[in-house]
Amino acid sequence: MGTLKFHFMKSTAIALAFIGVTGILGAPGEASAQIAKNVAAKSPWGPADEIGTLNMMTDNSRLDILKQVAGGKVYDLGVDLFIGMPTCCGAFGDPSFQIFLTHAPSRGDPAKELLSYAGDAVNMYTHTGTHLDALNHFGLHGKIWNEYSASEHLGVRGWTKAGIDKYPPIVARGVLIDVAKSKALKHLPASYAITVADLQDALKKQGTTLQPGDVVLIRTGVMTLWPDESKYRLLDEPGLSLEAAQWLVEGQKAMLLGSDNFGVESLPSPDPANFVPVHSYLQAERGVSILEAVWLEDLSKDQAYEFLFMASPLKFRGGTASPIRPIAISIQRR
Amino acid sequence: MGTLKFHFMKSTAIALAFIGVTGILGAPGEASAQIAKNVAAKSPWGPADEIGTLNMMTDNSRLDILKQVAGGKVYDLGVDLFIGMPTCCGAFGDPSFQIFLTHAPSRGDPAKELLSYAGDAVNMYTHTGTHLDALNHFGLHGKIWNEYSASEHLGVRGWTKAGIDKYPPIVARGVLIDVAKSKALKHLPASYAITVADLQDALKKQGTTLQPGDVVLIRTGVMTLWPDESKYRLLDEPGLSLEAAQWLVEGQKAMLLGSDNFGVESLPSPDPANFVPVHSYLQAERGVSILEAVWLEDLSKDQAYEFLFMASPLKFRGGTASPIRPIAISIQRR
Amino acid sequence: MGTLKFHFMKSTAIALAFIGVTGILGAPGEASAQIAKNVAAKSPWGPADEIGTLNMMTDNSRLDILKQVAGGKVYDLGVDLFIGMPTCCGAFGDPSFQIFLTHAPSRGDPAKELLSYAGDAVNMYTHTGTHLDALNHFGLHGKIWNEYSASEHLGVRGWTKAGIDKYPPIVARGVLIDVAKSKALKHLPASYAITVADLQDALKKQGTTLQPGDVVLIRTGVMTLWPDESKYRLLDEPGLSLEAAQWLVEGQKAMLLGSDNFGVESLPSPDPANFVPVHSYLQAERGVSILEAVWLEDLSKDQAYEFLFMASPLKFRGGTASPIRPIAISIQRR
Amino acid sequence: MGTLKFHFMKSTAIALAFIGVTGILGAPGEASAQIAKNVAAKSPWGPADEIGTLNMMTDNSRLDILKQVAGGKVYDLGVDLFIGMPTCCGAFGDPSFQIFLTHAPSRGDPAKELLSYAGDAVNMYTHTGTHLDALNHFGLHGKIWNEYSASEHLGVRGWTKAGIDKYPPIVARGVLIDVAKSKALKHLPASYAITVADLQDALKKQGTTLQPGDVVLIRTGVMTLWPDESKYRLLDEPGLSLEAAQWLVEGQKAMLLGSDNFGVESLPSPDPANFVPVHSYLQAERGVSILEAVWLEDLSKDQAYEFLFMASPLKFRGGTASPIRPIAISIQRR
Repeated sequence: MGTLKFHFMKSTAIALAFIGVTGILGAPGEASAQIAKNVAAKSPWGPADEIGTLNMMTDNSRLDILKQVAGGKVYDLGVDLFIGMPTCCGAFGDPSFQIFLTHAPSRGDPAKELLSYAGDAVNMYTHTGTHLDALNHFGLHGKIWNEYSASEHLGVRGWTKAGIDKYPPIVARGVLIDVAKSKALKHLPASYAITVADLQDALKKQGTTLQPGDVVLIRTGVMTLWPDESKYRLLDEPGLSLEAAQWLVEGQKAMLLGSDNFGVESLPSPDPANFVPVHSYLQAERGVSILEAVWLEDLSKDQAYEFLFMASPLKFRGGTASPIRPIAISIQRR
Repeated sequence: MGTLKFHFMKSTAIALAFIGVTGILGAPGEASAQIAKNVAAKSPWGPADEIGTLNMMTDNSRLDILKQVAGGKVYDLGVDLFIGMPTCCGAFGDPSFQIFLTHAPSRGDPAKELLSYAGDAVNMYTHTGTHLDALNHFGLHGKIWNEYSASEHLGVRGWTKAGIDKYPPIVARGVLIDVAKSKALKHLPASYAITVADLQDALKKQGTTLQPGDVVLIRTGVMTLWPDESKYRLLDEPGLSLEAAQWLVEGQKAMLLGSDNFGVESLPSPDPANFVPVHSYLQAERGVSILEAVWLEDLSKDQAYEFLFMASPLKFRGGTASPIRPIAISIQRR
Repeated sequence: MGTLKFHFMKSTAIALAFIGVTGILGAPGEASAQIAKNVAAKSPWGPADEIGTLNMMTDNSRLDILKQVAGGKVYDLGVDLFIGMPTCCGAFGDPSFQIFLTHAPSRGDPAKELLSYAGDAVNMYTHTGTHLDALNHFGLHGKIWNEYSASEHLGVRGWTKAGIDKYPPIVARGVLIDVAKSKALKHLPASYAITVADLQDALKKQGTTLQPGDVVLIRTGVMTLWPDESKYRLLDEPGLSLEAAQWLVEGQKAMLLGSDNFGVESLPSPDPANFVPVHSYLQAERGVSILEAVWLEDLSKDQAYEFLFMASPLKFRGGTASPIRPIAISIQRR
Repeated sequence: MGTLKFHFMKSTAIALAFIGVTGILGAPGEASAQIAKNVAAKSPWGPADEIGTLNMMTDNSRLDILKQVAGGKVYDLGVDLFIGMPTCCGAFGDPSFQIFLTHAPSRGDPAKELLSYAGDAVNMYTHTGTHLDALNHFGLHGKIWNEYSASEHLGVRGWTKAGIDKYPPIVARGVLIDVAKSKALKHLPASYAITVADLQDALKKQGTTLQPGDVVLIRTGVMTLWPDESKYRLLDEPGLSLEAAQWLVEGQKAMLLGSDNFGVESLPSPDPANFVPVHSYLQAERGVSILEAVWLEDLSKDQAYEFLFMASPLKFRGGTASPIRPIAISIQRR
């Protein structure tokens, strides 16, 4: 392995800074060490499971939340996809969003002129804009959730297990935890790591109670910086600490975690050996999928903390993510 | 204009056949001539309208249908997106679906090895798999719905009007009209043009009544041929006649039309001057958007004819379409 | 490995036919078995070699051929790249050629209007149009030329060894062997396997003698079918037999082999276990690179059999090929 | 036109700075005004001409330079193309360079395992790495060289005139003017505008005389900053002034101009109304094509100032540019 070069890393200051900072922050705290086992887990839903905690959804759970709908106003939780939009991962070599015309009126084809026919194609990283990460996005030591191994299940075009094509549409209770508002900040400061107490404070102020199976959406406020890519960026984003993530999924039995930032978790990582410890903990160890770059501004403005949450990722076969456009509809508060 | 060449048309027999057949079928019937004016219309929803009949949706209409939900079973109406999947428009030069890995475990990067990190990018025509066409997809004589003109509103990366980024999430009553089942056929024959009587017969057999604002999904049965692209194909597909489309949108006030075929309408066109007369009629003249390649097999099997329909297209800025993955949930039949 | 699916193979008749035919043709003849060892070879040019027989080029060899130039007429040996052009490998999931505008005049941007600024992007398989295959394109049992192994030298974005980025510009004596003309055929019949005698006959008729280090270009005549992709196609192309390839590289010490067909060799393969035995023999066992889809029509017309050959592949880092546009300039016949 | 938005411009500081600086530098000097007419010119080579000064090449001119070759050492004037490489035009929405595997050994396909088969695809802006701009890249007021107009000759996939597919292979005398070395600088300072005197000084020091029909390559030295994209960048690059460009093409009858920077000319432009006045002057008014990002370091080191220059752009149909990999071979100095 020693002869391989990192020939895909851009020589940008920001990427170097990221690696540098990661390298000097020292060992993770004892608490972290006790949370993450750093080994991919077997699924409690059996050897064929590829979707982890999404198994918590049932016909009953869906009907229950649908029956609580209190109005017809729809909140749009997805951002636009456009040329020049912020991209999480340019520094890692991933492509920017592109849309190109393949047909257009007024461009010289008489047959099409009559019909004024337009068509277009897109090129994009699957983790573009608001998106849902699949459980094959991050593993540990060559294995992903449910111990599927790269040596057996990874092909040239992607994993054959735990891809976004296996995901069911999501229809569940959603809860917003507005941490920025709870702290009376426009947005949390760069690299801020949200604590368990932060979440509990916000929930208390909101008067919201979490329930098992919830889609929990954390508002850091950084979407107020969108779409200025010099400000809305991955590498020093505020977000969840590992402890807070553990409290949500192990303590509160959240089904799905999401946030308005690019990578859900506080970055850079406190762990020099793992640049996204919350991702690997959630995806490889707990089978919890992640929503990123979720537009939470309208929910925050309306103090709409509890809602029917719906999202249906595109089924890219083997895909590690899909752009999505989730919606929320307020429910009666019980 | 005379010096321009069709340098993007593939020299395949199928494309030539398409053009040839279109050319020899003679003038459209009188009925058609009376239906289509062949001129883009002004919107009754005002000079700023970009979404046409989707304006029929209101908070009340959405709440009304949500309240009718009768169970928690979710029907997935979207197909997988994969290498080698059928493509509507390769003969017109549009790209096939591609997914590529940009990061993967077990490929020589020790840092990523620990995390077993995978990522991927997609290249695709926006009209790939199950998708929703926007009103800027087909116009007439250089203008699209609401008289937006290419000379004013078309940029190099797309229209600035009536793109898929302007579309609201769709939450509405959906109805399946299972024409194939009504005729006791696995699928309608190639090029079959569905009549008004066909729709009325099927609705009667189903015991279904259309309501204004419905999302109407027509089942031709061709999805039983999916994904064999030698059989599931655009150029001789069965689908709606212009008369049937008119009856649905002008007579029954349908909000949105969809089908399980590639292009909603019967092809090749009976009109030698217009290769997709139902598209131009619906999009440019009536402001009706179109769903294509919708997976209706499960609804058909369960005879689930009336349902809550939900879909939220990705907001590609200026885009003429977006792949979508709609869902359906059965409602109480009134 | 058993759970992996061939999820990238198109369900087309042609691909199935290819596999089918390969499967039924029985074992390769004894001759073949003696030619190909079916194991990647060490390079005689040392453990760091990544370019194989291109090491035969020296300052002296280049100067020698440059000094023989007999005129200033340049033969263009490359084809155009365009929407709808024939593609070798659509049935294997590889993308078609695409070009898209990213900037254009007359599309609504006043600043660009003044400058009438146009720009464009391409998406393509690296084996598009006339191209040069690198030695990392085909290996045997996980190793390529010079025993570089996939486990050590293959990253997610490509091989770090023997990629097209390591290739020197090619300046050498070129020779056309016009087999189609020798047989007085417009083109060889489908699947015809060129024999050693065919080559010797053509050379004799031409009065051409091969020399060590030559770039040898074989004309089958199929480029007369270009660009009709229903006729110019990979899967049943006429081309070199393994015996003829061996005679050229082991017997005549050719440095580089090329042809006007898509895959140099006669297809389908006579070997049920190896669908491109000439490729694996040349690339993995002999270190001989391959030129494909070379435009030889003008050389043939002028009976220009001996020439200065020049080509410089783009240095895609790790790439398995590059489109090229070689040129030829006639030399004095000695 | 008024309602169109610049929806493809990235909201980055650098792009804003570029536009800002352009806007405040005031009117161009009188000299410039006399050089550029700001109107696309008719070609002296006739109404069908699409290649401008490349018409200066003849069989005689090519043979003449080929006969002067003094050795077999080949200089490689092209850079590598790789993930993360500097891109001229990300701020304008153009895509970065991407290469993706489509086939690879050791990834689960037993048939391919035997053959250890790798393939790959690229996505890129045509102006990537070392490249040749075609005459349809910049025009003036809707017309390009030879008065071809966008209204007649621009289709959705590109211009049908003056594209890179019309370009002949280039075989000509090349001359390096090493301005950086002449000034004893590693590289010229940011935004430095090379004067006529700078060129004359360098030529004198080198003992080089220009001849009509030369490919003139200007070394600014910025390639010593490659591939650090924070330093090797378009928007404040040193390069040719309009006066120097005029002297080369009108005074010295250069056939082709090139440089080691991204955009040949000094940037930002001194003309607030024209952000690349040297491009529009050369391409639209004089029919002179441009080579960019040329690797001149080895020629400089060897003081190889006069040489056979050869390059053959890929024939992307309609393309505004092609990546190229030119070569140089020293000639006898006369």
